[in-house]
Amino acid sequence: MHIEVICTGDEVLTGKIVNTNFSYISQKLEDFGLSVQWETTVGDDRGNLLLAFRLAAERADAVIVNGGLGPTVDDLSQEIAARAAGVDLALNEEWLSRMEDYFAKRGRVMPPNNRKQAMLPAGAEVIDNPVGTACGFALNIGRARFFFTPGVPRELRRMLEDQLIPRLLAKSGLQTAIFLKRFHSYGIGESHADALLAGVEALAPDGSVKLGFRAHYPQLETKLTVRGKDMDDIQNKLAPVEQEVRRRLGNFILAEGDQTLERVVLDALGDRHASLSLVETFTSGQIAARLAHLPGAGKIIRRGIVIPDVSDACAVIGLDRAVAADGTGAGELTRETAEAVARAARQQTGATLALAVLIDLDEGTDRIDIGGTICLAIASEHDTASRRSRIVGGRDWVRLGAVEMGLDCLRRYLQGLPVYERIDFEIDRP
Amino acid sequence: MHIEVICTGDEVLTGKIVNTNFSYISQKLEDFGLSVQWETTVGDDRGNLLLAFRLAAERADAVIVNGGLGPTVDDLSQEIAARAAGVDLALNEEWLSRMEDYFAKRGRVMPPNNRKQAMLPAGAEVIDNPVGTACGFALNIGRARFFFTPGVPRELRRMLEDQLIPRLLAKSGLQTAIFLKRFHSYGIGESHADALLAGVEALAPDGSVKLGFRAHYPQLETKLTVRGKDMDDIQNKLAPVEQEVRRRLGNFILAEGDQTLERVVLDALGDRHASLSLVETFTSGQIAARLAHLPGAGKIIRRGIVIPDVSDACAVIGLDRAVAADGTGAGELTRETAEAVARAARQQTGATLALAVLIDLDEGTDRIDIGGTICLAIASEHDTASRRSRIVGGRDWVRLGAVEMGLDCLRRYLQGLPVYERIDFEIDRP
Repeated sequence: MHIEVICTGDEVLTGKIVNTNFSYISQKLEDFGLSVQWETTVGDDRGNLLLAFRLAAERADAVIVNGGLGPTVDDLSQEIAARAAGVDLALNEEWLSRMEDYFAKRGRVMPPNNRKQAMLPAGAEVIDNPVGTACGFALNIGRARFFFTPGVPRELRRMLEDQLIPRLLAKSGLQTAIFLKRFHSYGIGESHADALLAGVEALAPDGSVKLGFRAHYPQLETKLTVRGKDMDDIQNKLAPVEQEVRRRLGNFILAEGDQTLERVVLDALGDRHASLSLVETFTSGQIAARLAHLPGAGKIIRRGIVIPDVSDACAVIGLDRAVAADGTGAGELTRETAEAVARAARQQTGATLALAVLIDLDEGTDRIDIGGTICLAIASEHDTASRRSRIVGGRDWVRLGAVEMGLDCLRRYLQGLPVYERIDFEIDRP
Repeated sequence: MHIEVICTGDEVLTGKIVNTNFSYISQKLEDFGLSVQWETTVGDDRGNLLLAFRLAAERADAVIVNGGLGPTVDDLSQEIAARAAGVDLALNEEWLSRMEDYFAKRGRVMPPNNRKQAMLPAGAEVIDNPVGTACGFALNIGRARFFFTPGVPRELRRMLEDQLIPRLLAKSGLQTAIFLKRFHSYGIGESHADALLAGVEALAPDGSVKLGFRAHYPQLETKLTVRGKDMDDIQNKLAPVEQEVRRRLGNFILAEGDQTLERVVLDALGDRHASLSLVETFTSGQIAARLAHLPGAGKIIRRGIVIPDVSDACAVIGLDRAVAADGTGAGELTRETAEAVARAARQQTGATLALAVLIDLDEGTDRIDIGGTICLAIASEHDTASRRSRIVGGRDWVRLGAVEMGLDCLRRYLQGLPVYERIDFEIDRP
């Protein structure tokens, strides 16, 4: 099935807004085994909108139009849809009263220009929008079924998932039961993961499981899209593949589905009634910022301490860096230094656990071959775990990598896994 | 002049990558008084690429094509450009030796498949790429001049600014001297700023200055695009408008041009040889994370302290919250509490200044009407400044607003401006 997307609006066309609605739509369709073949962006311009609709109507089976359903004069989607389909606009009484209710519930009278949002092309199918006043609708233009959706991301997402995808799946003739299983990992690059997982799709019958990836450094998402008659059928097909992915990616899997690394870490701490303190240098508070604002974190995160300078970090807890490090006086950052900092921070703040992430950053102006040596340690009452790694790729790359490494090592520690396993992003010290 | 952009590549079409290249191109063109009328995204597919090129060639005067210049088999831009123009591909010896040099300098031999990057449509004009191996080029297809650019953002940006914009300005017949003046502010919404600045454009002759905005909460960017014969002419036209914008936006202007709020704050601290400590609650280290990783911050940022729970924050510095607050025992968060925390943090860390940002967040699950009361204080040896504000709009909205408010109040304090001026994002306590 040939699917196109048309994004409308001057704000998107002029780049004032980055078009995340499009990437959202396209990814979501991919998750359900559907593909977008062509995307067009035009502004709030009658001529270009009409041309874009007509061109898509000649090529596509289904077209998703995003934006232009608002109450203002530059919202033109209904008007141009009607022209392209050769029909008139007609007032939809039902939607009008829905809107009047919507405003009444909020103690307001509906402004007159909102009436425009209930004017739909004659014969259009209404597509519900339970979270806003923009009325979605579908109608045929040329050989294609057009689906009109609101530009507000929250409204678009709800409508796409609840209303459009079932209609598109039905139209495509694909089995309607579909499921997306996701694994999140840190430390394995996309091509490495692809090689590690070679052949897993074959563990399910007749191509019913499709493997895909989405890399967003430092994390990688591994996706299994499964099709079947119903959810039981899907679970049966998925089970052997899922098990094999878990076996091959092993300890690198940090979360699955809608879970996040920060939530996994907080929940593991909560389960053991543990509190946590953090010491950060060049990560500058970014590790704390990933955890401490989450619901429930107030009782778990005891203290975050940011000290940009590594030597200061040692001094603050009463350590002389060179001595603490390797005894040579050379001051090379070592795991032992990080361990001493973590132990001292735990003791001083009275937390169950402390994580210290110390970084020696290469000097000089920022460029792609700037690297950093990361020494991190986790201290509890009974033991201390630590690792030392070098990451190269510029200041931001090192910093983002160190934030993720700190959180992921904490996850590994809490799950009883080895804190050190070689990752694809680290390089051996020259 | 009718300009179109064609973005190519499966990763963009499937939404794996959000298309920030397009918004970058379009914004940059707008900054120079040029406008994109139409954007098309197609995948690495010969048929769709050819059709997209042909359709744009019928409509546009100039077309920017992004992506598809790499060395792999799915990079098709040169091949399809040649087909669309009805010419053959030919090896560009000069670019080939440039690439061989490029690899030699890095101690590597050029892989054979990179040779493909030097195959250009016959008669194409080479457009230099000083930072990569993808060769930019221009040629006529239909009635339009096509400009082919690499998908790597860094390479695209350099080529667009140095090579394409001068060519597009020349082609458009616009005066080639153009300048973009930018003001960054916090606390004024876009529509308010628009009203405040009504009529400023008229202070320059014959529409040579154009006013625009780009809102990215919590900051707002106010842009003046100026056209003239040369830079002297531009400066003359801009001067009265620039002065008037500064007068009307006043203390809300936090930086201009390429300056950032964090850099302004760090430089002001550096100028007075001052050090800074921070105490954060719900902002969770995000204020520290904006400052502490920047070059030179190591000597300035003494300590960042994150304590999610406000009562803990008081206890840590030896304050009983209820008593410190208002003496009533009710525990309502007050400016006095923040002042006491800032003073104690300054003293305990030995910093010249301390900023404390304490937040009382509404309880309940996150929704649009969740708000927070922010009490912040800045303490020095001699005085203490503070403010209290309430922001509503959900957990993230409150947190982002509080981070910006903390940094901006620090900027105001360091510049001798009032720390409290009412902002558009705050609401009065019910």
